[in-house]
Amino acid sequence: MLHALDLLGTFAFALSGALLAARKRMDIFGVIVLAVAAGLGGGIVRDVLIGATPPVAITQWAYLATAAAAGLVGFAAPVAVARARRPVLVFDAAGLGLFAVAGTAKALDHGVPAVGAVVIGVITAVGGGVARDLLAGDVPAILHSEIYATPAAVAAIVVAAISRAAPVELGAGRPRGRGSKTSYARTET
Amino acid sequence: MLHALDLLGTFAFALSGALLAARKRMDIFGVIVLAVAAGLGGGIVRDVLIGATPPVAITQWAYLATAAAAGLVGFAAPVAVARARRPVLVFDAAGLGLFAVAGTAKALDHGVPAVGAVVIGVITAVGGGVARDLLAGDVPAILHSEIYATPAAVAAIVVAAISRAAPVELGAGRPRGRGSKTSYARTET
Amino acid sequence: MLHALDLLGTFAFALSGALLAARKRMDIFGVIVLAVAAGLGGGIVRDVLIGATPPVAITQWAYLATAAAAGLVGFAAPVAVARARRPVLVFDAAGLGLFAVAGTAKALDHGVPAVGAVVIGVITAVGGGVARDLLAGDVPAILHSEIYATPAAVAAIVVAAISRAAPVELGAGRPRGRGSKTSYARTET
Repeated sequence: MLHALDLLGTFAFALSGALLAARKRMDIFGVIVLAVAAGLGGGIVRDVLIGATPPVAITQWAYLATAAAAGLVGFAAPVAVARARRPVLVFDAAGLGLFAVAGTAKALDHGVPAVGAVVIGVITAVGGGVARDLLAGDVPAILHSEIYATPAAVAAIVVAAISRAAPVELGAGRPRGRGSKTSYARTET
Repeated sequence: MLHALDLLGTFAFALSGALLAARKRMDIFGVIVLAVAAGLGGGIVRDVLIGATPPVAITQWAYLATAAAAGLVGFAAPVAVARARRPVLVFDAAGLGLFAVAGTAKALDHGVPAVGAVVIGVITAVGGGVARDLLAGDVPAILHSEIYATPAAVAAIVVAAISRAAPVELGAGRPRGRGSKTSYARTET
Repeated sequence: MLHALDLLGTFAFALSGALLAARKRMDIFGVIVLAVAAGLGGGIVRDVLIGATPPVAITQWAYLATAAAAGLVGFAAPVAVARARRPVLVFDAAGLGLFAVAGTAKALDHGVPAVGAVVIGVITAVGGGVARDLLAGDVPAILHSEIYATPAAVAAIVVAAISRAAPVELGAGRPRGRGSKTSYARTET
C-alpha cells in the first residue's frame, strides 16, 4: 500500500513540476528535470532523514520512470492546459496528501516517534514542491499559502493517530511494537 | 550543555526567520514555516552529515516547539520592530555562534576528525540562515557579508582546539578517546 | 583513481563557482563560499545519498583545501577573464564529466544497483552547479540548457555498463561481486 501511495504521489508531483516548467516555457530538458525534482524530492529527503539510504526513489527504477513519464505527459499537454495555473495546484494538492500519508507511515515503520513521524510526513509532502519552486526561481508556495502545510499536517497527524490506536503494519517493513517510541534514543545528544 | 546550546540557537535562528517573514509581510503560516526552517535547518543538516539520523530536531518535540514559539513571538512583535533590519541580524549572530559551537562539539562527539568537525560546525551555523534566505527569495547573507562565515569558523576552531587540548565530554554522548580521529576511515574512498 | 577524479572535479567546479562569484562582483568571502559550495556540493550529496556519512569532502581536508585554492585562483584572475561567461562553462563541463564518472563508480562500489548508480552519478555531477546557481540567485543552468544533464547521464551510463561488463574495482573500497545488485533490498519499503 505504501508503495502504491508513493508512486501515485510521485506522478502527481512530477506532473505539477512539468506543468510549471511548461508554463515557464522551458524546453523538454527543463520539463523533465523539474518533473523529476518535484516527483522524487520529497521521498529522497524522507529516506535521508530516517536513514534509509540509498533512497528508494533512486534504487527502484519505477520512481524515476513514473516521474519521467509524468514529465512527458506534461510536456505533451496542450499549451492552453499547460499555461493554466489550476492544474498545477490540483496535482500539487493530490501529491501533498499522498506523500504526507506515505511519509508518516514509513517513518513510523522505521521506529520514529509519533511527533517526529508527523514532522517527516509534512517534510515529505512539501519537499518536492519546495524543490520545484526553488529550482524554477519562485518563492515556495508553502510560504504564502496556508493550503499547503495545514492539510499535510492534518493527514500526517491522522496517520500517526490511527497507527497508535491500531498498530498494524502499513508497509511491508520490519516489525514494530509499542515500545518503538524510544528506539531512537541513541541518536539523541 | 550541548542540548541547551542547541535549543538556544534554535530559538535565536527561528526568531530571525520569523522577523524576516514579518518584514516581508507574510501571513502567520509563512512566518511559522520560515521560523521552523531557520531554526531547525542547521541542526538537521548537521545530523544528516554525521549520520545521526533521524535528526534530533525532528525526533525531539522540544526543537519544533521552540522554533514554533519563536515564530509566534516574531509574528506578535510590534510592526515597527518586525520591519527593522537590526533584530534579524542580532538574533542571527547569536544563533550563528551557538550553532557553530554545538555543531562542532556534536561532530567531535561522533568521532569526526578535527578539520571535518570544524567544517560541520560552520555548516550547522550557516545552514539555517541559508535555508531561510533561499526560501524567502533572497541571496544568502553569507555570500555578501563576511560577518557570517568568519565568526562561525573562529568559534568552531576554538571548540576543536579546546577539545583536543582537554578531551572532556561536551555532550552526554558516547565515549570518545584520542584514537577517534581515524574512526571514519572506512567511509573514505 | 576515484580519489583523483574527485579532486579534479572539485577543482573544476570550485573554479566555476569562483568565476561566477567574481562576475557578480562578490568580495573575497563570497567567492570562497561559492567556490566551496560548487566544489563540494555534488560529492556531499552523493555521500549522503549512499549513506557514506560523514561525507569524504568534509572528513578529508584535501577537498576543502582544493576548493578554497580554486576560489583564490578565481578571485585573483584578471577581471576580464572573471567576467567572461566562457570560462565558467568550460570548467563546469569538466567538473560535470569528472563527477559523473566518480559518482557512478562510488555508488557501484557501495553496492547500489546500476540504474540507481547512474541516477546518483547524475546528481553528483549536477549537484554542485545547482547549489552554486541557487546560492547566487540564478535559475540553475541545468533547467535551460541540455548540455548539462545529457552528457552527465551518458558518462554515468558508460561507467555503469563498463562496470557490469568488467567488474573490476574502480576505487580502493570494499569487495563487490556480481551479487551486489540486490544488497540494498533491505532499504526498500
